[in-house]
Amino acid sequence: MNQSKLNELNNWLQHNNLDGAIITNYHSVAYLSGFESDPIERVLALVILSGKNPFLFGPALEVNSMQESGWPYTAIGYQDQENPWRKLAQHIQNTSKGSQRFAIEADNLTVHRLNALQNALPTGDFSTDITEKINQLRLIKTSSEIQHMLAAGQDADRAFEIGFQALHAGASELEVAAEIEYQLKKSGVPSMSFDTLVQFGDHAADPHGTTSNRALKANELVLFDLGTMTQNYASDASRTVAFGAVPKDIHDIYDVVLHAQQAAQQQAKIGMTAGELDHIARQVIEEAGYGQYFNHRLGHGLGSSVHEYPSIMPDSHLILQENMVFSIEPGIYIPGTAGIRIEDSGYLSANGFIPFTQTTKNFTVL
Amino acid sequence: MNQSKLNELNNWLQHNNLDGAIITNYHSVAYLSGFESDPIERVLALVILSGKNPFLFGPALEVNSMQESGWPYTAIGYQDQENPWRKLAQHIQNTSKGSQRFAIEADNLTVHRLNALQNALPTGDFSTDITEKINQLRLIKTSSEIQHMLAAGQDADRAFEIGFQALHAGASELEVAAEIEYQLKKSGVPSMSFDTLVQFGDHAADPHGTTSNRALKANELVLFDLGTMTQNYASDASRTVAFGAVPKDIHDIYDVVLHAQQAAQQQAKIGMTAGELDHIARQVIEEAGYGQYFNHRLGHGLGSSVHEYPSIMPDSHLILQENMVFSIEPGIYIPGTAGIRIEDSGYLSANGFIPFTQTTKNFTVL
Repeated sequence: MNQSKLNELNNWLQHNNLDGAIITNYHSVAYLSGFESDPIERVLALVILSGKNPFLFGPALEVNSMQESGWPYTAIGYQDQENPWRKLAQHIQNTSKGSQRFAIEADNLTVHRLNALQNALPTGDFSTDITEKINQLRLIKTSSEIQHMLAAGQDADRAFEIGFQALHAGASELEVAAEIEYQLKKSGVPSMSFDTLVQFGDHAADPHGTTSNRALKANELVLFDLGTMTQNYASDASRTVAFGAVPKDIHDIYDVVLHAQQAAQQQAKIGMTAGELDHIARQVIEEAGYGQYFNHRLGHGLGSSVHEYPSIMPDSHLILQENMVFSIEPGIYIPGTAGIRIEDSGYLSANGFIPFTQTTKNFTVL
Repeated sequence: MNQSKLNELNNWLQHNNLDGAIITNYHSVAYLSGFESDPIERVLALVILSGKNPFLFGPALEVNSMQESGWPYTAIGYQDQENPWRKLAQHIQNTSKGSQRFAIEADNLTVHRLNALQNALPTGDFSTDITEKINQLRLIKTSSEIQHMLAAGQDADRAFEIGFQALHAGASELEVAAEIEYQLKKSGVPSMSFDTLVQFGDHAADPHGTTSNRALKANELVLFDLGTMTQNYASDASRTVAFGAVPKDIHDIYDVVLHAQQAAQQQAKIGMTAGELDHIARQVIEEAGYGQYFNHRLGHGLGSSVHEYPSIMPDSHLILQENMVFSIEPGIYIPGTAGIRIEDSGYLSANGFIPFTQTTKNFTVL
């Protein structure tokens, strides 16, 4: 449980004349309560009531886990056949008569759920969005969070090593990804932060494609994009390596991506905007003539979830601050030819960007 | 692409005097368009315009994949730094002047996204929810969908076999889960339908707990809950087996769960309600005195996603129909002692419930 952040939210509620907040993004719930669980399609909420003790609300089958997680306040369960919103509303009314104005996470709560909540609590006003406040709370990482992410980065480095060793002619992308996940899980990494992406040759030109049965041939590139959940924090990193010699023009494109990634990583500093950082990398790629093939943002925040606020993207005026954690991941994707992405995640310090992953980015032929 | 279902939706729009529908649940998008992709935090939408051609809308980096997936209509991309809702609204206005009333998927669209859409299209009326219509479309499976799910069930059976063989004293839950996923992926199963759950002994008493580093001891139960994505359809099944002899009272509880599961599976028939089916299993468990330890619904629908409409739960009046696909998964979880769940997914035919998985449910000692 994160009592100081809960206190900060309580102050924020009072300052904004709000009676409570209903937190439903399970990553936010975990961050604030210490209870980690993806409820999938069921309802999980952390309810913060102004000037009162908060409570956790979720599936009956999770109440034991809530209590065992160290949550010191009330944990309330609902059965599958109950209307969770009606039960939640009852509890709010019992605890805090006359409460009316509640903040919600508008980027998480669905329209359907808001309607159900409004029906269950007809006098409630749910027009305030707490998303930005929660984003701000989670944006600047504590040193203990950064320690967790350094550990996660070490697991990601190990993953690359396993992946590099698993490459052999005829191996499928899925086989290499399976080997990485197997070795990590066997050594105690509880889960990946997303399905491991391994793509060979021209298949990597699809930057959001999936790991497939495509077999590895000699003299093509291999793109890895992977991450672990370590101590409940995510790692996220990408490397592209050559399996045998590749044509000079492919090597040249690799160097463009590498220069873009390194330029951004070396020049990132406190006080610059996210848009300026994006521009540093994008400019390198544009000047080399590949601008149209870098069709995504430079990076994204991460922490207890692998994709979180903010986006490092063109035109963003967000000021980069000390102990913000984000990825720097430029790429060039030429349909039918090749896809190259190089990515480190790290945190911003007074000494610049400190990456969590150390695997070499020098052009590597395996 | 599923032209007949798109036509059916188009008729539904006209019948309800709607100008269009904005489909944002990526499973619905995949079902209707044939384009499979989880956009994570980005926006992916299938826009159906009454009496016009539909279009796909999503991240620029996915447009190639959309076109390559066989989607015969327009595919429109947006850049990360663009406001997707403004771009989507512009395209709607270009294509269909004067359109005003749009259905949304209210159980998927967040409050934030609805607000963004409303701001981008101030004259739009988004008060109609298409969720129930889409649920109905997806509820009754075609014979080709059932074939895919039979194949997925075979992969799940293979997974149990791998898992049973991987059990040895001292093995961790994570190690066994890793072995299952590794062998499956190596043989070409693209992904699991959810993180493989392996739980030993009393750890299984937490029905939504996670696979951990806990080591296997002799004479305890092992609970497996797993599923694959095979041909883009999900399998989902659970087995509980004994690693060495277990006390008679544990064996007796196993038999209660087995009888509950078999009673429901044998008596499921077209025309009964979901609540009646839940009751058949629940009654067996209640009469044995374990009612309080079966704290979840009997089952859930599945198809191209592993959890979908409907819930098989107490008090549901939903009529079970031919070619509906759902799980039957009673369980008994006694904190500190043991957790037992037995689950088959299958489809309802004129001959009753036909399971997708064949792994024995007889009490098995390994």
